[in-house]
Amino acid sequence: MDSMTFVLFGATGDLAKRKIYPALFNLHLNQKLPDSFSVIGIGIEELSDGEYQTRVKESLLTFSRHLINDLSKKEEFAKAFRYMQLDVTNTEGFKGLLELVQQNEKDQDIEENRMFYLSVAPQFFDVIALNIKESGLGETKGWKRLIIEKPFGHDLKSAQELNEKLSRAFEEDEIFRIDHYLGKPMVQNLEALEFANPVLQSLWNNRFIANVQITASETVGVEERAGYYDKAGAIRDMVQNHMLQLLMMTAMHLPKQISAKDIRDEKRRVMESLRPLQKETVGVHVVRGQYGSGEINGTPVVGYPEEPGVAASSQNDTFVAARLWIDNSFWDGVPFYIRTGKRMTEKLTRIVIEFKNPLKNFYGSEIQNPEPNLLFIDVSPNEGVSLQLNSKNPVNGKLEPIMVDFSANKQDVPEAYELLIFDALRGDSTFFAHWNEVELSWKWVQPILEVFKEDRIPLHSYPSGSMGPEAAHKLLEDDGYKWW
Amino acid sequence: MDSMTFVLFGATGDLAKRKIYPALFNLHLNQKLPDSFSVIGIGIEELSDGEYQTRVKESLLTFSRHLINDLSKKEEFAKAFRYMQLDVTNTEGFKGLLELVQQNEKDQDIEENRMFYLSVAPQFFDVIALNIKESGLGETKGWKRLIIEKPFGHDLKSAQELNEKLSRAFEEDEIFRIDHYLGKPMVQNLEALEFANPVLQSLWNNRFIANVQITASETVGVEERAGYYDKAGAIRDMVQNHMLQLLMMTAMHLPKQISAKDIRDEKRRVMESLRPLQKETVGVHVVRGQYGSGEINGTPVVGYPEEPGVAASSQNDTFVAARLWIDNSFWDGVPFYIRTGKRMTEKLTRIVIEFKNPLKNFYGSEIQNPEPNLLFIDVSPNEGVSLQLNSKNPVNGKLEPIMVDFSANKQDVPEAYELLIFDALRGDSTFFAHWNEVELSWKWVQPILEVFKEDRIPLHSYPSGSMGPEAAHKLLEDDGYKWW
Repeated sequence: MDSMTFVLFGATGDLAKRKIYPALFNLHLNQKLPDSFSVIGIGIEELSDGEYQTRVKESLLTFSRHLINDLSKKEEFAKAFRYMQLDVTNTEGFKGLLELVQQNEKDQDIEENRMFYLSVAPQFFDVIALNIKESGLGETKGWKRLIIEKPFGHDLKSAQELNEKLSRAFEEDEIFRIDHYLGKPMVQNLEALEFANPVLQSLWNNRFIANVQITASETVGVEERAGYYDKAGAIRDMVQNHMLQLLMMTAMHLPKQISAKDIRDEKRRVMESLRPLQKETVGVHVVRGQYGSGEINGTPVVGYPEEPGVAASSQNDTFVAARLWIDNSFWDGVPFYIRTGKRMTEKLTRIVIEFKNPLKNFYGSEIQNPEPNLLFIDVSPNEGVSLQLNSKNPVNGKLEPIMVDFSANKQDVPEAYELLIFDALRGDSTFFAHWNEVELSWKWVQPILEVFKEDRIPLHSYPSGSMGPEAAHKLLEDDGYKWW
Repeated sequence: MDSMTFVLFGATGDLAKRKIYPALFNLHLNQKLPDSFSVIGIGIEELSDGEYQTRVKESLLTFSRHLINDLSKKEEFAKAFRYMQLDVTNTEGFKGLLELVQQNEKDQDIEENRMFYLSVAPQFFDVIALNIKESGLGETKGWKRLIIEKPFGHDLKSAQELNEKLSRAFEEDEIFRIDHYLGKPMVQNLEALEFANPVLQSLWNNRFIANVQITASETVGVEERAGYYDKAGAIRDMVQNHMLQLLMMTAMHLPKQISAKDIRDEKRRVMESLRPLQKETVGVHVVRGQYGSGEINGTPVVGYPEEPGVAASSQNDTFVAARLWIDNSFWDGVPFYIRTGKRMTEKLTRIVIEFKNPLKNFYGSEIQNPEPNLLFIDVSPNEGVSLQLNSKNPVNGKLEPIMVDFSANKQDVPEAYELLIFDALRGDSTFFAHWNEVELSWKWVQPILEVFKEDRIPLHSYPSGSMGPEAAHKLLEDDGYKWW
């Protein structure tokens, strides 16, 4: 791995504390960082290097997945961190950052490779990128890369504008857009599951698959994020990015040789084949919901309009379900159903492949309603693969479903951020969202955003602790299916 | 279920004690016997009804899979048993049996349905059948059925002769030939697994399957059975019946509607498609072995020639492996490998489906020797289905095999004899060996019998506790495979 200077904007923020420092520390423990690795943390607060290092160490104690028995490891790791107070809107201030980076490159005797990580509010994305360019930080003899967090725009137009601004300072192949669902081990495994297994590969098309169901449910409500969430809704917070990425990863068909480019090309092709919605048809294929009061694990909780920071009249979506069609030869006639929401029955991200069920014809009237074969791919919180088959009950001779399953050993499984940051450090962009994917996702979502804004389809209330409004069940029932 | 009189020949024998009484008792407990069910036990010993009933009760204590908490259940069950001393070669004596059966039918006011169960040495099969006919026992206004144990002949000619004799007294559809492997729940489940699961059904042919491996290994040696076993060998004791039945059940392709006749027709078709061996080619496809001394679970054991009752010069086979080809459109080009033996590493009956492995081409040089997908069907001692898939190790990103598996809950799983006797009582012949199957099996085995007898191929010694002679591994290696 190349040596580099790692510049982290948002060094005192929540994401850095919870995810980035623990991920870097675990990479350090696993010797997956370059030898002379140094971080320059940028924040608006005034901190000494020592105070900053103390914060980094504190974050490890709370959030690292490894118990830290050897305290010297932590000390050694923290020494790589320096702090710079900087108002990122202050172009002049970036000169100082450039000097610091250059001094670091000289001190460490490393190449001019510069990693910029934007762990800041989205309104600062473009100005930071611009200031990196203006200050000369981006004019490097080595490489430069930009890691950027969501949200990438709040609609198609703003996403395009943001991308246009970023692209003045960075090339597309220098930009690593984090979608942390793409960092989940089971999502990264989808490619292997589908294509390193002849038995699954041969079944991965509309000849054998009846429908695909992708669920990402949460039990939490809006928590303290009303300011952001009430403007975003589930459609921006989950559907445009995570749900469509899961759909792309499930539906792609890989060519013979696998590379980052192949995977991204295939994902783009899936999005290009996604049947566009018209504003008139959104109501047929999309269900919008908002949680009412109810119970989560036996504890009463308030409805969304009663949440702190939410207006009683809020029409914001906390639940979205949708039926999607991929118009290519693999998926012609196979509906993809997605649903995501807050305050649902359980916290779960799962992909279910329902296989076609010719059994009724086969067994005639001998058995009633045999269950279809189902492949469950559990993404989180558990990771596993299960196949539901039909088997004969030896006691009564009747057919009944059995679950053939595999659960990953949770020990030592890297976190999404660890995998993603490691990939970015290596320059492997396989599991980052390409601009093509982001733009095509916004394009597909755009009519939904408008219909929601214009309040043209119902906002169904669903009780907290349920699996969403009845209309989301109806969506599948209309096609003769049900959510598994 | 029809009422009937159940006449058991060999009532004081080992099989009756170990298998038949416990099976009937469990059927009784599960209310799967007709209301007025009565057994007439026939033996050469002199026993009163009371003494016989005591023996039946004793067998339940030792061999029933249900703990008997309610002793009254046992008493109630034993009351249905009566005993008759009879030399089965004495035709006159069968008149007395007829009277007893008729008296029973009168006393119980039941129809003249008569079940004859031959749990005796094979030399008595034909004489009992003949005496049933001669005595008039077979001339009944109801139905009559014959349950018969193995061995059914000791070669093709003797099997044909036996069948010819039996068929003078019983029609084919009145004869229930027990192959207790067909009574094992997972074997009975094969039909459901293969055909009630679209995902497996679509893979069940030579487009996806590379080879099929059927193993039935024992850890025991010849025990006290040298008198029988030294004349039979593994080829008669296991291959001609159980191994070929497992092969038929694995390789059959069912038509749309499932009935006993369909299954037996398909099994016959498999046997008809089995490529015949010539005496000249036996050596190419068949491996013969005999166990030498060695260790079983750390305990030293003697070799076969040192076993009590075995001549030091015995050339008997205690191990057979073979490569078989089924020349039909489903299995063209797919070798079926079978192996069975005594004194092997573990006690295990397992079917392994190895799927074709196009992964090398797919991944290019990126991965070395990916494992093929494998379907394991565990028949005994554990019952289960496992699928070996390739998955990405989240720690190092490398492909590695994972096992997706299902293990049957062992509780309350009926024993083979329970399932088979129940089927015979109902007249369901699905899981009994039809004469066609038996004859075709003997036909296929006949050249092997002759080659073994004439000692035309090597008799490989293998150490006790191993998985058979090296030649059995070579058999697969020659085709580019290995035993899983």
